[in-house]
Amino acid sequence: MTDWLLTESDLKAIATGAGILGTGGGGSPYLAFLMAREQLRAGRRIRIIHPDSLDTDDRVLPLGGIGAPTVGIERLDNGDEGERLVSMIERVSGQTITALIADEIGGGNCLAPMFPAAQLDLPIVDGDGMGRAFPETQMTSFFIYGQPLSPSALTDASGNALVVTHATSARQLENIMRAASITMGCHAMMSTPPMSGEFVRQYAIPQTVTQAWTLGTAVETARQNKTDPVDAILQEAGGQLLIKGKVTDVERRVVDGFVRGVISIEGIADDRNRRLTIDVQNEYLVATEDGQQHAMVPDLICIVDLETGRSIGTEEQQYGLRVAVLVLPSPALLTTPIALESVGPRAFGYDFDFVPMVQKPAPT
Amino acid sequence: MTDWLLTESDLKAIATGAGILGTGGGGSPYLAFLMAREQLRAGRRIRIIHPDSLDTDDRVLPLGGIGAPTVGIERLDNGDEGERLVSMIERVSGQTITALIADEIGGGNCLAPMFPAAQLDLPIVDGDGMGRAFPETQMTSFFIYGQPLSPSALTDASGNALVVTHATSARQLENIMRAASITMGCHAMMSTPPMSGEFVRQYAIPQTVTQAWTLGTAVETARQNKTDPVDAILQEAGGQLLIKGKVTDVERRVVDGFVRGVISIEGIADDRNRRLTIDVQNEYLVATEDGQQHAMVPDLICIVDLETGRSIGTEEQQYGLRVAVLVLPSPALLTTPIALESVGPRAFGYDFDFVPMVQKPAPT
Repeated sequence: MTDWLLTESDLKAIATGAGILGTGGGGSPYLAFLMAREQLRAGRRIRIIHPDSLDTDDRVLPLGGIGAPTVGIERLDNGDEGERLVSMIERVSGQTITALIADEIGGGNCLAPMFPAAQLDLPIVDGDGMGRAFPETQMTSFFIYGQPLSPSALTDASGNALVVTHATSARQLENIMRAASITMGCHAMMSTPPMSGEFVRQYAIPQTVTQAWTLGTAVETARQNKTDPVDAILQEAGGQLLIKGKVTDVERRVVDGFVRGVISIEGIADDRNRRLTIDVQNEYLVATEDGQQHAMVPDLICIVDLETGRSIGTEEQQYGLRVAVLVLPSPALLTTPIALESVGPRAFGYDFDFVPMVQKPAPT
Repeated sequence: MTDWLLTESDLKAIATGAGILGTGGGGSPYLAFLMAREQLRAGRRIRIIHPDSLDTDDRVLPLGGIGAPTVGIERLDNGDEGERLVSMIERVSGQTITALIADEIGGGNCLAPMFPAAQLDLPIVDGDGMGRAFPETQMTSFFIYGQPLSPSALTDASGNALVVTHATSARQLENIMRAASITMGCHAMMSTPPMSGEFVRQYAIPQTVTQAWTLGTAVETARQNKTDPVDAILQEAGGQLLIKGKVTDVERRVVDGFVRGVISIEGIADDRNRRLTIDVQNEYLVATEDGQQHAMVPDLICIVDLETGRSIGTEEQQYGLRVAVLVLPSPALLTTPIALESVGPRAFGYDFDFVPMVQKPAPT
């Protein structure tokens, strides 16, 4: 297979699509796009490789931001966080990293591996551990299907760095990293342990960089052709429209290192008199109307601008925005019984089981 | 100089004295004593060496507990936390540790290096970084006088472990370690970076293991001879009696990983009609009567049982205890202007400067 060498316009399409897949979280794709673009302009290259082109003994390092998106739009990256993670993990593990992969494709985290990939000329695997964004470390297909817990590492823009050399559970790893990231101002970059090429081929959500690019390209094409970008997303991703409406209330606070809250949306036009609320923990978790859950994790609840199809992050929500709320189907690796223990509604404290979007009629 | 090989009765005397030097904190000396004694009973040895016997290129590792003493009396050590710290630091730093030293001599932390010292047959330097106990990582003579910040490591009884490979300040190191220790249940063991023998000779508070032993022996001798153990402490340590009284109120809670609160003591006998309050952050910080500060950090405020001279930790305080409150002079290394920035009253949020005990008349 040939490597895919990203262009500036590829980066832009990927950022647009990753924003939608971010389900409100994963950090600002625009800031990440600007930083990745600087790498290309500095003459470096960003290569994407298909998971099937990995050798069994490749060592693939997953990277991503950890923190509260609300903070991430004000507290910028330094740009060397990822490079330092690679060198710390290589030193502690004694392994040479041969490829990088995004922990989560959603939001700015899609682009998190791109800075170190450009700086170190390492390829990036076309895939990730979520097929979307999730708020917590243990919520990746990697951990769900047996990735080791250590060594995992954390760096911040100021130079602080730590390595967890042993953790008793993925949940405890999350607890340690979350607590440390809060002391770093709720914005840091994290790596979990290197994975073999074979493991990544089997357990990464496949080709999600391509998916982000395709989705982003569909939205950008609709904008250029002045067709409906919301329709374009639904056609491309096979989703359902939940509501078109106006944001009428935003409860949002940074609690325990997360953005938490509830977004209320009142229907407009055909959806007049309907009212949807969406629970937030960095990402959009559950969409409820009249006590009925219309959509829930791990299915993707996406909120986009009604006119442009641009994704709206949980940190950007405000009164008066006109939005479409969509639900896209979860990757299959996240709907197995073992995966739902980590990423289903009960993992977020809800007292109901996952009902996939495909089993529900579209709300009217 | 000859090594001092500790006996069980030495351990007991050191634990008794370290309890007094703990100024209410540093963890339970009794639990630590029981654990260290088991090492002797298993046939291992615990060697104490004079700081002057260190070679310039010795690598001395400081160790101590981090957490809330209230938790430490219920959540016991595993016993291998220190040994794992030594091996993690050796691995990350590439240096071979040749001796251990207590971060703080006060309370159970006096004995913290003894388990790994016995297990690894490493000597323990007769000294520490505080000459007492303090609540926070950055409050050692080591950090005050230029110990590097990394690599520092943390382990807990369950097996969790991390290494901070870079910290932007000693305060940030404290923040990271404190946050991580909270996720570990407010009870963990920590090591700061290896120090050269030369640095330790210059900046450790010297011979505090001996001081703890001497103080503990004086108290035990007074008990046996049925003389006043409080007098014995004052004579041995050159302190002042602040009050003899009864504990009438204890405000105490675990906040942000610390024990915080206020202890109120009403005078009895000659001190009738006097009322002293003592502020707590793991340790006793400031003693106040009628709006006047009688004693303050870094001088040592010690609360002991009136009859037995046994130290009473902040976590043991309760209504009705009959106690003597003493103040002992701070080690000289902690009263320099640079040291007071880290351990003087203002470092704890008070709006007044340090007035040493020796400049104050004894309260009447």
